[in-house]
Amino acid sequence: MEIGLVGLGKMGFNIAQNMLDKGYKVIATDTNADTVNDIASKGAKGAASLEELAGAFTGRRAVILLVPAGKIVDQVISELKTHLTEGDIIIDAGNSMYKDTLRRYEELKADGIHLVDVGTSGGTEGARYGICAMMGGDEDAVNYLAPMYESISVKDGFMITGRAGSGHFLKMVHNGIEYGMMQAIGEGFEILDKSDFDYDYEAVAKVWNNGSVIRSWLMELMINAFSKQPNLEDIRGVMNSSGEGIWTVEAALDFQASAPVIALSQFMRFRSLEDDTFHGKVVAALRNEFGGHAVVKK
Amino acid sequence: MEIGLVGLGKMGFNIAQNMLDKGYKVIATDTNADTVNDIASKGAKGAASLEELAGAFTGRRAVILLVPAGKIVDQVISELKTHLTEGDIIIDAGNSMYKDTLRRYEELKADGIHLVDVGTSGGTEGARYGICAMMGGDEDAVNYLAPMYESISVKDGFMITGRAGSGHFLKMVHNGIEYGMMQAIGEGFEILDKSDFDYDYEAVAKVWNNGSVIRSWLMELMINAFSKQPNLEDIRGVMNSSGEGIWTVEAALDFQASAPVIALSQFMRFRSLEDDTFHGKVVAALRNEFGGHAVVKK
Repeated sequence: MEIGLVGLGKMGFNIAQNMLDKGYKVIATDTNADTVNDIASKGAKGAASLEELAGAFTGRRAVILLVPAGKIVDQVISELKTHLTEGDIIIDAGNSMYKDTLRRYEELKADGIHLVDVGTSGGTEGARYGICAMMGGDEDAVNYLAPMYESISVKDGFMITGRAGSGHFLKMVHNGIEYGMMQAIGEGFEILDKSDFDYDYEAVAKVWNNGSVIRSWLMELMINAFSKQPNLEDIRGVMNSSGEGIWTVEAALDFQASAPVIALSQFMRFRSLEDDTFHGKVVAALRNEFGGHAVVKK
Repeated sequence: MEIGLVGLGKMGFNIAQNMLDKGYKVIATDTNADTVNDIASKGAKGAASLEELAGAFTGRRAVILLVPAGKIVDQVISELKTHLTEGDIIIDAGNSMYKDTLRRYEELKADGIHLVDVGTSGGTEGARYGICAMMGGDEDAVNYLAPMYESISVKDGFMITGRAGSGHFLKMVHNGIEYGMMQAIGEGFEILDKSDFDYDYEAVAKVWNNGSVIRSWLMELMINAFSKQPNLEDIRGVMNSSGEGIWTVEAALDFQASAPVIALSQFMRFRSLEDDTFHGKVVAALRNEFGGHAVVKK
């Protein structure tokens, strides 16, 4: 089976190696020629362009996109589809917003091309040795891809999720849950840190990860983090986010689902990006107005 | 080594069996004579009273309490200590509030008796085959107990946490994190359920538990739950709580630690206990007052 791959970043490169290990013929391209040469040296066929990639197939084309979510996905699809024929498959394996996926699915359907959406979790290590994959799309296209995708996933880590968009939607909600779990873990350590007890946080993460109710991969990662720095001294608590938390909250609003903890986890991330806040100024000003409480001056 | 055990509920009975498996001499009592006979039939020495339990020791007494948190702990300690001598150890292995533990520690110290606090996680299955235990208290008493406790814990699931109270405090914060993680997981499935996609939740829990970032024991338990009931049809979403979430929020307030997601998880539990809310009536009444918006009548 031949598989195309567009995008040889950390995830793409590792997934390419993973597919090569499993015996698939990988045809790969990237805007960075060096990474194309690198993956070619590992057994893939390198392509200098989307046209060359499409031309290298001997049979049905199935091309995985692992490029940043947003306009780049539209740009790649727009060019790639001119080199594809009816029945070919584009797999968007990045973190696209599911509504974009639904739109692209309809657009490609008009040309007879299948868009399959794959939500991928497990980080770069997972990409290399076994991903967690949630796949939505047309049954025919999904069935064509499923054996390959199952082979590069961990055991029981591959799911056919339903119609187009359902893979990206499921991965998005996964990330929303992840935000809530991470915030809860963070707050727990915050309370330990503010308390008048004196804990070894690496030991805490270790005991919590063995036999307790909150044992989890995230807690395992906390052992690693605290083993590098006992009090995370050199890290500032700035919590960036990549969009999926916001989209999860938007979905909760669209469907009128009550999801306050996930929403609050996202808002706490926004808060962490600011040294000062306007809402803080407002509250300080109001306290001063009604009670003469002193404000902290800039 | 002889170990006393007061309280043969699900946790106590299983921990007794666990200790018997490891070759310890268990002397056990409970207000329910049947469970005392049951554990005696498995090799423990049954005792009809606290006095009989204390009298059955041939050497240093170490007595684990696994009784409900609150007044019962005080009652048991109050009677038990009259049968103990200087240097003996009481281990409170239940979910006591850490401030109660600190008070009891000081009270028992006046009598020369050590109070060791052990926070225990892992459920009844863990109690039977390997707990997660966090132990605080005087070094001498903790060192006396540590080898036994390590033997009934899972690998790396035993931690000496520091001075008296630190074991219960750490277990309490663990539960606070657990509340946040559970609420986040619940909200994720809520969004899936309200969405217009159609997921098999057991399959979702399974794929999320294999290779994904949110893989965890809680997600493993969701596979079990959905395997019994695909949509949890027969369960009402009433989220009871046992006190440790509240205490975690109180600790956050005491120490001025920012823990909004844990606090909100606790408040959502309170909300779930009510069919209607007074805050809901207030908001409905205000909307009616200022905008003439219709209220829903009882």
